[in-house]
Amino acid sequence: MSSPRHPFDPLRPDEIQLAAEIVKKHESFTGIIFRLITLLEPPKADMVRFLDMEHGEANTPDPPARLAKVQAHVGKAFKEYKIDLDKQVVHLEVELENRHSHIDGNYMRKAEAACMADPRVKEQVAALKLPDGATVVVETWTYGTDGLNDMSKRMTMCWFYMRLSSDPDANYYAYPLGLCAEVSDDLKVVKIIHLPSGENDRVTDDGRPKEFDHRKIHETSEYYPTLTAAPRTTTKLYHVSQPEGPSFSIRGNQISWEKWTMRVGFNYREGMTLHDVRFDGRSLFYRLSLSEMFVPYGDPRIPYPRKAAFDLGNDGAGLCANNLRLGCDCLGHIKYFDGWVTSHSGVPLRMPNVICCHEIDDGILWKHTNTRTGNAAVTRSRVLVLQTIITASNYEYIFLFYFGQDASIHYEVRATGILSTAPIDIGNSVPYGTVVAPGVMAPYHQHLFCLRIDPAIDGHANSLLVEESHPLPIDNPDVHNPLGVGYTTQSTHITREGGFDLDHKVNRVFKILNEGKRNPTTGTPVGFRLLPCYSQPLLAHPSSFHARRSEFGAHAVWVTRYHDDEMFPAGKFTMQSAGGEGIASWIAQRQREGGDRSEVRDKDIVVWHTFGSTHNPRAEDWPVMPCEKMVVGLKPVNFFERNPALDVAMSKQERNLSVLVEDAGGSCCSGTLET
Amino acid sequence: MSSPRHPFDPLRPDEIQLAAEIVKKHESFTGIIFRLITLLEPPKADMVRFLDMEHGEANTPDPPARLAKVQAHVGKAFKEYKIDLDKQVVHLEVELENRHSHIDGNYMRKAEAACMADPRVKEQVAALKLPDGATVVVETWTYGTDGLNDMSKRMTMCWFYMRLSSDPDANYYAYPLGLCAEVSDDLKVVKIIHLPSGENDRVTDDGRPKEFDHRKIHETSEYYPTLTAAPRTTTKLYHVSQPEGPSFSIRGNQISWEKWTMRVGFNYREGMTLHDVRFDGRSLFYRLSLSEMFVPYGDPRIPYPRKAAFDLGNDGAGLCANNLRLGCDCLGHIKYFDGWVTSHSGVPLRMPNVICCHEIDDGILWKHTNTRTGNAAVTRSRVLVLQTIITASNYEYIFLFYFGQDASIHYEVRATGILSTAPIDIGNSVPYGTVVAPGVMAPYHQHLFCLRIDPAIDGHANSLLVEESHPLPIDNPDVHNPLGVGYTTQSTHITREGGFDLDHKVNRVFKILNEGKRNPTTGTPVGFRLLPCYSQPLLAHPSSFHARRSEFGAHAVWVTRYHDDEMFPAGKFTMQSAGGEGIASWIAQRQREGGDRSEVRDKDIVVWHTFGSTHNPRAEDWPVMPCEKMVVGLKPVNFFERNPALDVAMSKQERNLSVLVEDAGGSCCSGTLET
Repeated sequence: MSSPRHPFDPLRPDEIQLAAEIVKKHESFTGIIFRLITLLEPPKADMVRFLDMEHGEANTPDPPARLAKVQAHVGKAFKEYKIDLDKQVVHLEVELENRHSHIDGNYMRKAEAACMADPRVKEQVAALKLPDGATVVVETWTYGTDGLNDMSKRMTMCWFYMRLSSDPDANYYAYPLGLCAEVSDDLKVVKIIHLPSGENDRVTDDGRPKEFDHRKIHETSEYYPTLTAAPRTTTKLYHVSQPEGPSFSIRGNQISWEKWTMRVGFNYREGMTLHDVRFDGRSLFYRLSLSEMFVPYGDPRIPYPRKAAFDLGNDGAGLCANNLRLGCDCLGHIKYFDGWVTSHSGVPLRMPNVICCHEIDDGILWKHTNTRTGNAAVTRSRVLVLQTIITASNYEYIFLFYFGQDASIHYEVRATGILSTAPIDIGNSVPYGTVVAPGVMAPYHQHLFCLRIDPAIDGHANSLLVEESHPLPIDNPDVHNPLGVGYTTQSTHITREGGFDLDHKVNRVFKILNEGKRNPTTGTPVGFRLLPCYSQPLLAHPSSFHARRSEFGAHAVWVTRYHDDEMFPAGKFTMQSAGGEGIASWIAQRQREGGDRSEVRDKDIVVWHTFGSTHNPRAEDWPVMPCEKMVVGLKPVNFFERNPALDVAMSKQERNLSVLVEDAGGSCCSGTLET
Repeated sequence: MSSPRHPFDPLRPDEIQLAAEIVKKHESFTGIIFRLITLLEPPKADMVRFLDMEHGEANTPDPPARLAKVQAHVGKAFKEYKIDLDKQVVHLEVELENRHSHIDGNYMRKAEAACMADPRVKEQVAALKLPDGATVVVETWTYGTDGLNDMSKRMTMCWFYMRLSSDPDANYYAYPLGLCAEVSDDLKVVKIIHLPSGENDRVTDDGRPKEFDHRKIHETSEYYPTLTAAPRTTTKLYHVSQPEGPSFSIRGNQISWEKWTMRVGFNYREGMTLHDVRFDGRSLFYRLSLSEMFVPYGDPRIPYPRKAAFDLGNDGAGLCANNLRLGCDCLGHIKYFDGWVTSHSGVPLRMPNVICCHEIDDGILWKHTNTRTGNAAVTRSRVLVLQTIITASNYEYIFLFYFGQDASIHYEVRATGILSTAPIDIGNSVPYGTVVAPGVMAPYHQHLFCLRIDPAIDGHANSLLVEESHPLPIDNPDVHNPLGVGYTTQSTHITREGGFDLDHKVNRVFKILNEGKRNPTTGTPVGFRLLPCYSQPLLAHPSSFHARRSEFGAHAVWVTRYHDDEMFPAGKFTMQSAGGEGIASWIAQRQREGGDRSEVRDKDIVVWHTFGSTHNPRAEDWPVMPCEKMVVGLKPVNFFERNPALDVAMSKQERNLSVLVEDAGGSCCSGTLET
């Protein structure tokens, strides 16, 4: 039995197939290479009408036209199509000149093979005089624009590693070699580069490489269980059992849990997306998604500035999503969602278990003990978790949405996996990297994430308010502050699109408000506030390609007017991009145009939060990194009249069945008791 | 069977009794009122010798002298004694002139009764014309010094509330009345104050109070389950079962878990303390404790500046500790620790279950998928939790230490409970409070916590390093940064005691290092870094009593040279204190004295982290607050040679026994599969 299709549902496999057929028919060209076939979400204006009807009336409204977006290589052309799946027609066809598609795994594998087969490469590798039994591993990376090469054609960076073990799961990042190569769009090795091996060493691209220094051979960089000592056995079993089943229910892509409802989506680029998020029937967010991330490396030595990954725009968080395993990636009762993407030939590809949905216990939700009666009221916090995990070459990112019974949402990113490494001579050091093993340098880098928050706080006309807490003056006769302890809030309504910074010193708070709806108790507009993740903005110089390409990295909070086509704050096409197409550019363009298009007060707005970490690696991050967590929150602020978790049942032993651990040595004390 | 006594163990009941007897014998005075009998921890110099022997050799070293600190009222004198329990002698006796002991529950109850019995109070209450069935409730508070009264004698503030329900668990904070009273040390009502009822209304202390406005009567402020509607039933059972038992083992007050060992302590003032924290046998922290907290209210109108609570120094986090209930305050296998305090007569009082110890699952610890083999290695994060909860009148604070398998420690504070409230006229508002129910104003306030970190990073000579990440210059010919993307760290060794601020914009990181021990891989000193909680410092004016009394609130990070008697950063005696005795004063004093006493590089140092929240209440915080979390972390940074959690076993379904939730509607899709 099929669930009824909802306009927010990702394309189903039959729809992917249909879209491919429509394009094939349209082009009458047999060699089409499909790059993506994905849902083109309906225009928001249409969806708002649909949702209003869906939530307002019992009858099922007519859905907006079902549209697909397709990108494909048709001969030498890279094209985009907008397809109407209902009418089975191509609505729009554009040639994407000087644009590059996201990573093409087939091509990358071919580039790797071409690199390995190149005679000069072979000669260079031979000149390294690697140890017996070494297997050379080439890892292909997208080329982060650095101004040193023509970017109109696809170019791939091949970084060389080796593994010494015959086990294919040996950690080859432990042996970065001093070579790298540029491979062209037509699979030619264009240049071989000898990597620098110390701070004052510069890249060279001719002559013979340094021979491999056998002192670098070591046995302490393995992480895979077949290659490490037996694991500790001290961690005892820990089971989560839910004898009544989960508290959530799922209907197609709609999740209902406690008072929450939402729709989960999935696409090749953003991976997990959330739509139409509501609490107790009231609208909160039209859409929540990770919109981009950027990982620029801080090693200034050429060619390292090319290490600058847009993991959404270049790699696709959806395409990199892990197949989550029952009992490995989460505990308890787990619902998995599959994703569907397309093959080169337009055949739908199933990506199993790309999102998991489960519950956790998060300790105490609220508690109060009345000291007069001695009676405690205590509730436990149950949390709904939606998790997706991506592998982007060496790194893993775990993306989690947590929904609380108190109507809070937390978005967490966990960075794990393996550090990207570069060779360094034994005994050398550099001021922009950490030596994590003999001959292995892990360069400093940043992770910058941009959470796109498309609010619908009790409706779509929303405002962004910046509130700060400031002391009352002590010397102003008009202000009553006789003892110098008073403080108050100062609020600024953001009226124009822009980027803003965090400032904890003045408790700067960003509130998304609906000024048209007032809380009957407080008398103030209903809203949600952002609990930001405090982190450093982009370090690269504003004139650098890094900065121009990742405009969202310049500020922590951005607000823009809603536009259907503004989803990606570093631009739609990040692969070998030149910059100047991101969120700052949109804003600047509208400001230049003047008029009211950049007004954001009481409008349909989007709030973007850039956060992340400046990751200067530790020895402890090697050979595999314990998760580094970054957390962002969204909490109601005078949205509800009261604590929305007030009706959560008391926490009781009869239901929780905890077990008392007796002191092994018995009680040490037998003193007089008096209570 | 008794566990052998350890020098860090809290006093046992027989020791409390013995200390009382020694003092009684010493004083030969029959009316002694004991205020505290607590462990006087051995001088650090002695303990370091002891610990070195204890951890270094198999035989049990002789412990340092077992000392108790006693404070007592002896007639009109308030005295402190240092008792040698082994030799059964008084080592030191001082009279604490013009000092006040922490809250005396008996006295507070008497003050409450005296207030209620006062004829003028009765007259004033009658003049309020309260509704039928109203029960007046007087809540006593310590008097936060405001310069308006002589503080040499104890003075208590009595705030008036009422409850309308006959249920004693009805929420009387929902009906703050317009009265308050000052009660003197000899239990006299000194003054009755009519509270202001709007921004421009000033306190009056004569005449008749405003009559109670019956429009304030409402039914939406209850939280106790006997007084609220039936709870939601949607939250299904969630059990944690540990068929092999917990992974920790307990011997007396020592906890061993995974590679951690530590000793848990408890005292009347700080509540839970941790001692001699080690990982894999290596010393990390000599002592970790919450050292003070301050809750100043931002309502400038007299008498509200008196609301300024030092919950450790005035109330005692230990004395306020909850009796944790099995299955209510935590899940799984729980070990509880009791605390012991003293009665007025010197009889030991047992406080059951003041600390709980249990494990939680915290999602993924580390993961990597080798995309070449498709093989994933994934481990789950087991965490040891030590929890204590205190009730300070209206508020609850939950204090948690989390220990990770990756050698991280996180300290979390959850604020919950009920907002302190003040009356406000219907229709009025104030710029320093939120109206949360009819006639109920919750004033803006701050929560400032100070975590005392006494490090012993591979030894006791430690340093504090401030590291920031800065772009490399682009215009310096001596610096290679051709493309403007390079960045590096800039480090400053703190050489003198002082207070420092956070700055996420430059990724300012505070590292505690042992400069005498280098990581063999990275070549840099071993250390731990502070992951601070970004929050606003104290808002009150530096000249105010709030600021003078809570010196630690001025900066986020402080470093001092270790001194046995510097435990409390707002001073030893906070009750009605005048200020000038806290951490800034210690530092200033030593700086005035000159010499090397304020040097902190490569010395035995203490690091103090002040954090908290500027809490401008939301409607959602009423009538009981969902937990607001604040988290601080301590993480190894080049302390270990590798990821210390590398040997955690793989996460496997065979061990975890998770349950697959099938889609109720069945699979929606049956498209072509291709992988």
